[in-house]
Amino acid sequence: MADEVKLYTTPGSTFAFRVELALILKGINYKIVEENTKNKSADLLKYNPVHKQVPVLVHNGNPISESLVIVEYIDNVWKGYPILPQDPYEKSVVRFWARFIDSTCIPAIFKVFGSNGAEQAIAKACEQLQVVENKLAVEGNKFFGGDNIDLIDIAASFIAYWLGTLEEATEIKFVTKDKFPRITEWADNFLKVEVVKDVLPPRVIPPKAQLLAFFKQKFGDS
Amino acid sequence: MADEVKLYTTPGSTFAFRVELALILKGINYKIVEENTKNKSADLLKYNPVHKQVPVLVHNGNPISESLVIVEYIDNVWKGYPILPQDPYEKSVVRFWARFIDSTCIPAIFKVFGSNGAEQAIAKACEQLQVVENKLAVEGNKFFGGDNIDLIDIAASFIAYWLGTLEEATEIKFVTKDKFPRITEWADNFLKVEVVKDVLPPRVIPPKAQLLAFFKQKFGDS
Repeated sequence: MADEVKLYTTPGSTFAFRVELALILKGINYKIVEENTKNKSADLLKYNPVHKQVPVLVHNGNPISESLVIVEYIDNVWKGYPILPQDPYEKSVVRFWARFIDSTCIPAIFKVFGSNGAEQAIAKACEQLQVVENKLAVEGNKFFGGDNIDLIDIAASFIAYWLGTLEEATEIKFVTKDKFPRITEWADNFLKVEVVKDVLPPRVIPPKAQLLAFFKQKFGDS
Repeated sequence: MADEVKLYTTPGSTFAFRVELALILKGINYKIVEENTKNKSADLLKYNPVHKQVPVLVHNGNPISESLVIVEYIDNVWKGYPILPQDPYEKSVVRFWARFIDSTCIPAIFKVFGSNGAEQAIAKACEQLQVVENKLAVEGNKFFGGDNIDLIDIAASFIAYWLGTLEEATEIKFVTKDKFPRITEWADNFLKVEVVKDVLPPRVIPPKAQLLAFFKQKFGDS
């Protein structure tokens, strides 16, 4: 029986992006089910009753939620492009950093916009980003994963694309090239990866003008 | 070469408890390095420069931080007692719930005590606990893991022991038997597991009076 893989997503979702990138890196055929966040489908609510959110991956009828849990599942089930290393110690290091970026760094960044750029929130976000900056500086690689992107790069993808547009939409700019040269360089490298640049459709990475309009509507002060 | 396993911990730490329970379930010999939170060792700061916190596991010189990342590492490296299922789908379900309890439910509970029992914080924590209550009720098992404890039970251990004592110390009681009968029953079952009841030393599960005094000092309003 051929695998049936369905991804419940919304256009431009930064968390669904992680999953779709993993699926494409692995060369998996999948169907898209587009959700409307204002009118969620019965299927989405059934498949993810806890968070009631995209992304949800349904593989041969089995639903999985939480973007990084899904990405680890994809890496477990399908061979080919390695998203996590095989070695247990290296794997734990990758999990540590993906978790740090996902659960500490990105929430600190969201607090900046949620607080309309409160000084304390910016200081906290910069403190966390500095940890990431130092890691990139010490290792001196193109990506967190070395020469190729891995789970950490996937976890950090919000920082590569969405964050800059969000800064522009809100006019709250704190991730500058001066302050975070290695993160900025990493973001440039990440956006040049073939699957990111050429393979993923605009539904997944919306053109900047479109994303800017979306963020302006969501976070704008009008 | 024999494995060298060292655990950096502090007495009574609910997050280090997770790791020590996993080590004992696997039957691993390990050494304890007791840290003083007010005067952290150079080793701890070197091994966990990001969070500067226990627990840190050092296995043959390799340091690993973040309790659930450590527990997954232990399960990866040592065979014997299975902490996560082998099947990729079942594994993803266990990861989803361990993450929900660790990153959503327990932080919501901490907010109750941090806010001195603010009504809104209690309502939010109860909402998250209800999700856990429903899961236990639907499945009807002794543990999250079925007949034996697994990663979810380990992630939830704070709820089994520390939470009740914290409620007593602060006189903020919201996890009652009436409201959460299945969670209460699970907690009783968990505390009766042989390794929890008989094997772990008082350093890991401090006697109730001692923990009560500690929490009173930390959260009391004197």
